[in-house]
Amino acid sequence: METLEERARAVLPPEVFAYYAAGAGEQRTLVAQTAAWDDLLLRPRVLRDVSTVTTATTVLGTPVASPVLVAPAALHGLAHADGELATATGARDAGSLFVVSMRASRPLEQIAAAAGPWWQQLYVLRDRGISDEVARRAADAGASALVVTVDVPFVANKPTGPLPPLPREAIVEALQGRDPADERLQQAPDLGAADLARLKEISGLPVVAKGVLRGDEALRCLDAGADAVIVSTHGGRQLDGVVPSAVALPEVVDAVAGRAEVYVDGGVRTGGHVLRALALGARAVLVARPVLWALAVDGADGVRDVLDGLTADTRDALGLAGCSSPGDTGRDLVRI
Amino acid sequence: METLEERARAVLPPEVFAYYAAGAGEQRTLVAQTAAWDDLLLRPRVLRDVSTVTTATTVLGTPVASPVLVAPAALHGLAHADGELATATGARDAGSLFVVSMRASRPLEQIAAAAGPWWQQLYVLRDRGISDEVARRAADAGASALVVTVDVPFVANKPTGPLPPLPREAIVEALQGRDPADERLQQAPDLGAADLARLKEISGLPVVAKGVLRGDEALRCLDAGADAVIVSTHGGRQLDGVVPSAVALPEVVDAVAGRAEVYVDGGVRTGGHVLRALALGARAVLVARPVLWALAVDGADGVRDVLDGLTADTRDALGLAGCSSPGDTGRDLVRI
Amino acid sequence: METLEERARAVLPPEVFAYYAAGAGEQRTLVAQTAAWDDLLLRPRVLRDVSTVTTATTVLGTPVASPVLVAPAALHGLAHADGELATATGARDAGSLFVVSMRASRPLEQIAAAAGPWWQQLYVLRDRGISDEVARRAADAGASALVVTVDVPFVANKPTGPLPPLPREAIVEALQGRDPADERLQQAPDLGAADLARLKEISGLPVVAKGVLRGDEALRCLDAGADAVIVSTHGGRQLDGVVPSAVALPEVVDAVAGRAEVYVDGGVRTGGHVLRALALGARAVLVARPVLWALAVDGADGVRDVLDGLTADTRDALGLAGCSSPGDTGRDLVRI
Amino acid sequence: METLEERARAVLPPEVFAYYAAGAGEQRTLVAQTAAWDDLLLRPRVLRDVSTVTTATTVLGTPVASPVLVAPAALHGLAHADGELATATGARDAGSLFVVSMRASRPLEQIAAAAGPWWQQLYVLRDRGISDEVARRAADAGASALVVTVDVPFVANKPTGPLPPLPREAIVEALQGRDPADERLQQAPDLGAADLARLKEISGLPVVAKGVLRGDEALRCLDAGADAVIVSTHGGRQLDGVVPSAVALPEVVDAVAGRAEVYVDGGVRTGGHVLRALALGARAVLVARPVLWALAVDGADGVRDVLDGLTADTRDALGLAGCSSPGDTGRDLVRI
Repeated sequence: METLEERARAVLPPEVFAYYAAGAGEQRTLVAQTAAWDDLLLRPRVLRDVSTVTTATTVLGTPVASPVLVAPAALHGLAHADGELATATGARDAGSLFVVSMRASRPLEQIAAAAGPWWQQLYVLRDRGISDEVARRAADAGASALVVTVDVPFVANKPTGPLPPLPREAIVEALQGRDPADERLQQAPDLGAADLARLKEISGLPVVAKGVLRGDEALRCLDAGADAVIVSTHGGRQLDGVVPSAVALPEVVDAVAGRAEVYVDGGVRTGGHVLRALALGARAVLVARPVLWALAVDGADGVRDVLDGLTADTRDALGLAGCSSPGDTGRDLVRI
Repeated sequence: METLEERARAVLPPEVFAYYAAGAGEQRTLVAQTAAWDDLLLRPRVLRDVSTVTTATTVLGTPVASPVLVAPAALHGLAHADGELATATGARDAGSLFVVSMRASRPLEQIAAAAGPWWQQLYVLRDRGISDEVARRAADAGASALVVTVDVPFVANKPTGPLPPLPREAIVEALQGRDPADERLQQAPDLGAADLARLKEISGLPVVAKGVLRGDEALRCLDAGADAVIVSTHGGRQLDGVVPSAVALPEVVDAVAGRAEVYVDGGVRTGGHVLRALALGARAVLVARPVLWALAVDGADGVRDVLDGLTADTRDALGLAGCSSPGDTGRDLVRI
Repeated sequence: METLEERARAVLPPEVFAYYAAGAGEQRTLVAQTAAWDDLLLRPRVLRDVSTVTTATTVLGTPVASPVLVAPAALHGLAHADGELATATGARDAGSLFVVSMRASRPLEQIAAAAGPWWQQLYVLRDRGISDEVARRAADAGASALVVTVDVPFVANKPTGPLPPLPREAIVEALQGRDPADERLQQAPDLGAADLARLKEISGLPVVAKGVLRGDEALRCLDAGADAVIVSTHGGRQLDGVVPSAVALPEVVDAVAGRAEVYVDGGVRTGGHVLRALALGARAVLVARPVLWALAVDGADGVRDVLDGLTADTRDALGLAGCSSPGDTGRDLVRI
Repeated sequence: METLEERARAVLPPEVFAYYAAGAGEQRTLVAQTAAWDDLLLRPRVLRDVSTVTTATTVLGTPVASPVLVAPAALHGLAHADGELATATGARDAGSLFVVSMRASRPLEQIAAAAGPWWQQLYVLRDRGISDEVARRAADAGASALVVTVDVPFVANKPTGPLPPLPREAIVEALQGRDPADERLQQAPDLGAADLARLKEISGLPVVAKGVLRGDEALRCLDAGADAVIVSTHGGRQLDGVVPSAVALPEVVDAVAGRAEVYVDGGVRTGGHVLRALALGARAVLVARPVLWALAVDGADGVRDVLDGLTADTRDALGLAGCSSPGDTGRDLVRI
């Protein structure tokens, strides 16, 4: 049976597929991250009443139908003519939350209009004014939180060729009206604690630090003002060879010790993976590539379907493990 | 040399072979469960008198010629025209015990008439009356015990297509005279301790809880009235990614601590596997797919032969390890 | 480059090659045993004077040019017309010690005449008188020790076809003049401590117990009168799935604690393997299949060359690890 | 994309490629050594200022632009007509340090004239006078240190054929004007502590002991007068099956405990590998084969480019891990 990824590969220009699919370096993290979830063996409970299994939960107080959220990813316009508008619609229809990339193909206000609950992802750029401005716009447009990426002081090399000439509408928003060569658009290599604090103050929104793989680094983010953290390998696209998210998650959860919500992304592909993440203490997971493949293949409906599918698979996994909700999980479910 | 599975694949309709062969999800448990037995290295004893090696033992007091029992599996009528009658005959001729599925193709009374010692497997259905009725009928027909499946609050998804149109006689008993779409035939998602107690009282039979993979969950079953437990992954057909039975067995045996007999199924294919299970504290093992393949290939004689073969292989493994009986084993035989 | 095994396969009848090559059961031990040596990483010493590296040592007081001995194996007459006479000559010319199988193709007295130092392997047969008689003949013919196989209460099944019709001269000695179907020729399943003691007394020779994989079982053999033990998986030809010799060796050495010499066989194919065995406390190693392949390909000269080659490779490994003799080794050389 | 090694294979005579590429024995160490780096998972820091990331460091007080040095390797004249002159030029242009082999194709004085910072590698030969003379010449020619190889009491066997007839100019220097068959040119098997001390005194230069894989052996070298050690498997070309350098490094660093600088070679191929080595306490790494491949493909420019590439990759890895310099690393970056 053809997988969703194979179907997307068939419809996307090769350069675009490679752009989304690639990992950094020798792509070891990319391969390792899904395997790391599978390596965690499950220990199901029995004789529990699972007549009613819900996947509903909240993230930073926002109700969502499922602990499966849409991770930020650049330039959805490369995958589908409607770009992030389609993704927002699909995510909304699935009851999920959409984390909109700062490198979106569309103005965030347009995306916001189509979206259900959404958060705004931000890079701190060399010209911090640009990031600050997006933070303000996101707050005005109704974002519930800012997701500040902390694992990109600069973009890692990836073994992919150049992107095809991009349609103007696919990049104008990502460029914030500037020239692609403008150095001010690059990530700030001196991104620090002060940035988290400032973006939080400017926007009046909670801040989620995305891209930690260590307990001590998670605490550093919280100390800098973050309200939550995302354990992430950046899709295997930054430092190659890092610990898979599934391995790092328990350490981060233990360090955070309930002070903040912890989310996780990286290689989550099945309901069993979501169950493991919840059992290890994640509040929710985020997925990127499956959403992009679905977007490429079937637009908003595809996004909705892939999210609904993962949610249904998560519901089954919860029930088969004897759990009736995301909160009704625990470390006992996993053999580490 | 063609394996039994390959010979069965050659004679069965592809949909039927797939129905029996499939695991749930990504089928990781299905693959892992046999490998988990092999991973346990054996530590043989020497200079023991093994002039007389017996495989005979008892299960819940019932004498059997071998610790290799026939696990419950649905719809033997798909594999052979005589269905469970042939299986019962073959198991009886091998001196084994047959656990009859509640989803059998034949009335349990007919199977009982052909069988040697037998137990009746039960699902607790949404309409508990149906399950209760089967329990009563099984007791009346001479079953020695009830095997209540506790790992199916609902049936997991499997990547197999629809079954072929079933011959009426292959399913009428499984349906208990009802319409296949009748929701009351579905497994009860609120299966609980009270069900074990009630079925035990109704039938006056000992109850075996099938489908535990944790020590604490085994105790939960015993506390609910179970007289024995079966460590099982449900053939890799329920929650994918669970601990293999070979890994879970020692934990369960330790928790049960002699209060009840512990059996195990899942990937047992050689006498060496049986030896490992006994060494880790299992009273007996159950096998399903090898019996189905043998049934498909050669009916009752096939079932007898595959069971006799496993028993002979178990006898050899016992003797080569310096053990003269199933009871003459222990953890010293296995390097964990 | 064609390996010795490949060359032997080319010259031997397929049934004979299979007879020598086969392991028992699913042949897992056969495959695992060489890998287990390789898994032990070496930790070389430096700045040692290795101007003179000797491989010479003694086994039970008998000087040998190398810690690489010839393991017992049945029916060398299948591999070469001169059978054990060629093996004995080759081993003698290499300065090695030949353990003559009780199932040899030639009378032990003829082999003894051609051999350098040699030991006689014995099975305790159902008719113990036969074994006793061979023990007496071996003592008379000048054997330095008896090697009593303790891991064959009966012969395990192997997935090989029947042997080709054997030339009369290839089997007459193995049969001790009896009919092949004579049950008295079978191994005694009640082989015990008393047998070791009796054979020792009858022969007046030291007794080596061959086929232990546990420390406690090694002590059982010593307590029964054995003067040394051989850690062995019987070439992967008895209980399939046992711990590889390389894994069992340290446990046995620790248990024996210097009371007796410990030898090891099973998958030793390089000088680095020999070095690991010595480092873990083995006094010597034994090899069977490489000798049989060499015998098939080039008779006595082949046997001498393969032994000389292994000895030279052992000398290199000793020197490169900073060791000047078999005794100048230790556990520090291996990372366990 | 064709790798550098593949391009080198295409331009080199097969015997020369094999000579450089081969490992000893079964070549297990050769394969294992790069995998051992990859097995060490990285734990990046976040929210650090990496606006300025430098790879500059010092080795024994000598400033270098990068912790990636050029390991000694024999006979560069086989790879390129300019031999070590090209390597020296390329290394100098990359700001690296070149460890010149005693088996160079060119007189060390010529190499020194083309080189940036350089060290002289020495074998202690059976005729110690030859080694002493090279040590004196190196000191006179401006070497900053001597690298004395301690893991070659003799050369291990490698499964490669004979080298092609060498051009006279490629070997005359390696032979030090002697006949290739002259036994005095062979490595001294009684290489010992006194040699390190004497070479240090003769040359007045610091001495680096190359080829240790254990903490205690590193201390033995320091006690003999070494000023630094190189953890090395000799490119997998001496004792096959040793611990990979990546595994041995932490033990050596712990034993040395700051008394001396520790370098490492063996399978380092990416900036992530360099980062791991630094994190585990190495002061610098050395690479050989990538330099030889680059030399074969593109001479001095190739050498410069491959070193510049590794340095850039190291800079990226440092920055992505939140480190601003080689010294700003630590064990926290690696999950062991």
